[in-house]
Amino acid sequence: MALIDGNQVAETIIAELKAHVASLKGRKPCLALVRVGDDPASVSYVRKKEKTAAEIGVESRVILPPVTISQGELEILIEGLNGDPTVDGILVQSPLPKPLNELAIFRRVSPDKDVDGFHTVNLGKLAQDDDSGFVSCTPAGIMELLARSKVDLAGKHVVVVGRSLIVGKPVALLALQKRAGANGTVTVCHSGTRDLPAITRQADVLIAAIGRPEFVTGDMVKPGAVVIDVGINRVTDPSRKTGYRLTGDVHFPSVEPKASLITPVPGGVGPMTVAMLMRNTVKAHALAHANR
Amino acid sequence: MALIDGNQVAETIIAELKAHVASLKGRKPCLALVRVGDDPASVSYVRKKEKTAAEIGVESRVILPPVTISQGELEILIEGLNGDPTVDGILVQSPLPKPLNELAIFRRVSPDKDVDGFHTVNLGKLAQDDDSGFVSCTPAGIMELLARSKVDLAGKHVVVVGRSLIVGKPVALLALQKRAGANGTVTVCHSGTRDLPAITRQADVLIAAIGRPEFVTGDMVKPGAVVIDVGINRVTDPSRKTGYRLTGDVHFPSVEPKASLITPVPGGVGPMTVAMLMRNTVKAHALAHANR
Repeated sequence: MALIDGNQVAETIIAELKAHVASLKGRKPCLALVRVGDDPASVSYVRKKEKTAAEIGVESRVILPPVTISQGELEILIEGLNGDPTVDGILVQSPLPKPLNELAIFRRVSPDKDVDGFHTVNLGKLAQDDDSGFVSCTPAGIMELLARSKVDLAGKHVVVVGRSLIVGKPVALLALQKRAGANGTVTVCHSGTRDLPAITRQADVLIAAIGRPEFVTGDMVKPGAVVIDVGINRVTDPSRKTGYRLTGDVHFPSVEPKASLITPVPGGVGPMTVAMLMRNTVKAHALAHANR
Repeated sequence: MALIDGNQVAETIIAELKAHVASLKGRKPCLALVRVGDDPASVSYVRKKEKTAAEIGVESRVILPPVTISQGELEILIEGLNGDPTVDGILVQSPLPKPLNELAIFRRVSPDKDVDGFHTVNLGKLAQDDDSGFVSCTPAGIMELLARSKVDLAGKHVVVVGRSLIVGKPVALLALQKRAGANGTVTVCHSGTRDLPAITRQADVLIAAIGRPEFVTGDMVKPGAVVIDVGINRVTDPSRKTGYRLTGDVHFPSVEPKASLITPVPGGVGPMTVAMLMRNTVKAHALAHANR
């Protein structure tokens, strides 16, 4: 019934980070944003990250290598940023143009500057309940939305639909951690799950991250469940000027009446991602200072 | 009804490894076994590993630093083994005596020689479906037992009871992987799970790894389920000469009649652990050769 307002929560976090950064003495946190090519979505994402960084007082350094950059050259560029003591966080905007090996590039980013949380070491730390690493931004944003909506996962059944490396698995591991707010019982379902509705209907907290528009319908949701919609899908809509509308992985009209809390799309999980990126950058800066 | 004979499966794997090692030209695989102190269980485990290595034709090098060794000295010892090109795998027998920081020592072992699979990088690789790393021996043994018992997890509901770093979480991640034999729908429960029996009764494959003797009883199991018992608990038994008997996390008398397949304790998962350690050592040797 009640909406979780991701824009508002993200704004609160951004205001908190701004106050924190203002209190920092000396060099401010710095985020390097590496974008290869001119994919329109990537251009807009990087611009949004730059703008939010500026708002908080985080320096951003946008690096635009030519689209023809080779794997080796890009790795050398990343190594340069790894070694640069004035850079705290490094974000390589996904997707990279085709010939480039994205996973190899993500792994080249120093784990200490991996504010996207994609590095093997940071995923391993998450699985080890070790909070010295970086949690990738969307799963971290989901946990923060739940915490600020006073949803404690302890004793609850959390069902995650989707097992991606970027969302499904890390959010499942986070919900399972032995820490305040977590301690959930966690089920991960996916496209190969048999009788999926019978499982999603058990969810006290349902996290939809399967990347299929309006996949989760009202009949798949238990009355009173908390529903987090991670999907951002473009579906054709001739009635719109743009020719499409954005929709989540949840069929909002049928699910909303049953849910006790639900995130809209857009304006739910989405805005949290950039806020968490900024929080990771501020953390990377603090760790760099602590290690000096 | 039918027992999964872990001793027999382990023997088959050991015979396979023996034939493989015999076919290797040049230096044979070498496993360094580091044991600090004289904990009787540790003495017996290390002896068993030595014996199995000898059977396969894997060289083992037992290193027994004094119980008074400091953290720093032990780390230097590990670094020496990391740098030794004649050592392929390094196992530090757990538990280490109290003042030593076990996690820090495990993380000091080079990921390329971490045949126990405890290193952050290897856990991260497991979560990333990247099989270039090492999977810790007990979860790997469970998957191997299932595979060799022709239990395909695809479309099945796998319920793991226990969320430990060594068993519960890695086996959950393995069961969830996108690969032949896996692709399960996976639920992880633990001591804080509400109405646990309602969840375990949904399991097509139930993995008990909670460390409580005979915790899983017949009423918690669906007829026809496959039951994997990871527990090894000593319970007092005055009728035995030793004064105790070994029992798993499963109450065998009530569960066995309902299960389609079940592992006994002892003789189920236990013997697989050493076999998987040997397989990891042979893999480490192959990787070391490939990287030359």
